[in-house]
Amino acid sequence: MSVEQRLKDLRIALPQVGGPLGNYVHAKQVGNLLYLSGKGPPDGSDGRMPKGKLGAGVSIEDGYRHARGVGLVLIAAIKDALGGDLDRVEGVVKVLGMVNAAPDFEDHPKVINGCSDLFVEVFGEHGRHARSAVGMSSLPGGIPVEIEVIVAIR
Amino acid sequence: MSVEQRLKDLRIALPQVGGPLGNYVHAKQVGNLLYLSGKGPPDGSDGRMPKGKLGAGVSIEDGYRHARGVGLVLIAAIKDALGGDLDRVEGVVKVLGMVNAAPDFEDHPKVINGCSDLFVEVFGEHGRHARSAVGMSSLPGGIPVEIEVIVAIR
Amino acid sequence: MSVEQRLKDLRIALPQVGGPLGNYVHAKQVGNLLYLSGKGPPDGSDGRMPKGKLGAGVSIEDGYRHARGVGLVLIAAIKDALGGDLDRVEGVVKVLGMVNAAPDFEDHPKVINGCSDLFVEVFGEHGRHARSAVGMSSLPGGIPVEIEVIVAIR
Repeated sequence: MSVEQRLKDLRIALPQVGGPLGNYVHAKQVGNLLYLSGKGPPDGSDGRMPKGKLGAGVSIEDGYRHARGVGLVLIAAIKDALGGDLDRVEGVVKVLGMVNAAPDFEDHPKVINGCSDLFVEVFGEHGRHARSAVGMSSLPGGIPVEIEVIVAIR
Repeated sequence: MSVEQRLKDLRIALPQVGGPLGNYVHAKQVGNLLYLSGKGPPDGSDGRMPKGKLGAGVSIEDGYRHARGVGLVLIAAIKDALGGDLDRVEGVVKVLGMVNAAPDFEDHPKVINGCSDLFVEVFGEHGRHARSAVGMSSLPGGIPVEIEVIVAIR
Repeated sequence: MSVEQRLKDLRIALPQVGGPLGNYVHAKQVGNLLYLSGKGPPDGSDGRMPKGKLGAGVSIEDGYRHARGVGLVLIAAIKDALGGDLDRVEGVVKVLGMVNAAPDFEDHPKVINGCSDLFVEVFGEHGRHARSAVGMSSLPGGIPVEIEVIVAIR
């Protein structure tokens, strides 16, 4: 089954990818590796970028939801980089999940699972990846989660 | 000399690798690169996962020891990923050493040396790697150190 | 035009690369990828290593300047690793920009642009890269910015 078909079956619509916040590109390919820039969650239903800190106002459930949103943005950026053809994804290699977190927060894996679960739903076994899920003192614009990923392509 | 022989000579016993704390895998291979997930230290002599923050209770000496422990867990995970054959390691490429640290902590390199020194002991010159050693606001479960690594394999 | 010629035209002099602060190397090559260790800014005009935190004393303008300085150190380290020949750089692949930042700091991209802008000035379109710009709780020696980079070489 094609990835696009699976997205349809899962009723997943990919968000728009906003412009880079600096002098960089969304994705850079070298050989069969595609490096994605770190992404934040898509705008909320109020049209605003989510803000907040895990362990200081943002719940684990909301963090999971934000991380899933980041995953959607990443898949949209991957699709852009691959000329619209997600079937060129051979596998997700490595995820760095960065949580905007209070000094005593301990549940980063539960948050980043939002992105990891999505990758496995969409890409199947090839979506399984190596990962770190860690706590940052702060993130651009105060977003609760930022995730970067390396993808193998064909 | 084989890596296993060197481990024996150094009287190093590899720890068990615990299950992933989320929906990911310990290691993912692409081409001749093996990406390892971020790992924490093995359980202490009290059977509990170490906790604490550098610059706020955990000494540099203990941090070094924890980082060495993380290195042992990483070598065990590499061995698992390579079907038990550590001689397939061509070299350690890149280490990201993440220290659970207070805002004014400055000695991250002295902590992460615990892992770097181990890699050079075990893999010799091929164990030398590029590295960053930096301070996180928090880490999963409150562990003092988390390290991820990229290894070149044959 | 050669990269050296462009450096001359831009009146850019590369700084000395200080020794590693631990048991690691400045750069490690695997295949056509060169992984650089995380670097801090060069010493200031007072001969001392810059210190301080964004959002807690260091301005965005100074942060940008420090990030540009880190970029210069990285280019110097790349040159060393390539036997002095910067024309062997095929492209900058990935930048991880780590800002020593207060918990409420939000302008990491504006800081790390100092490095990204430099890479594009020096390497042209090939200098454009994937990137994350994030906030760390602390950095070695209290430096305001640390950046690591992956470069494709020929």
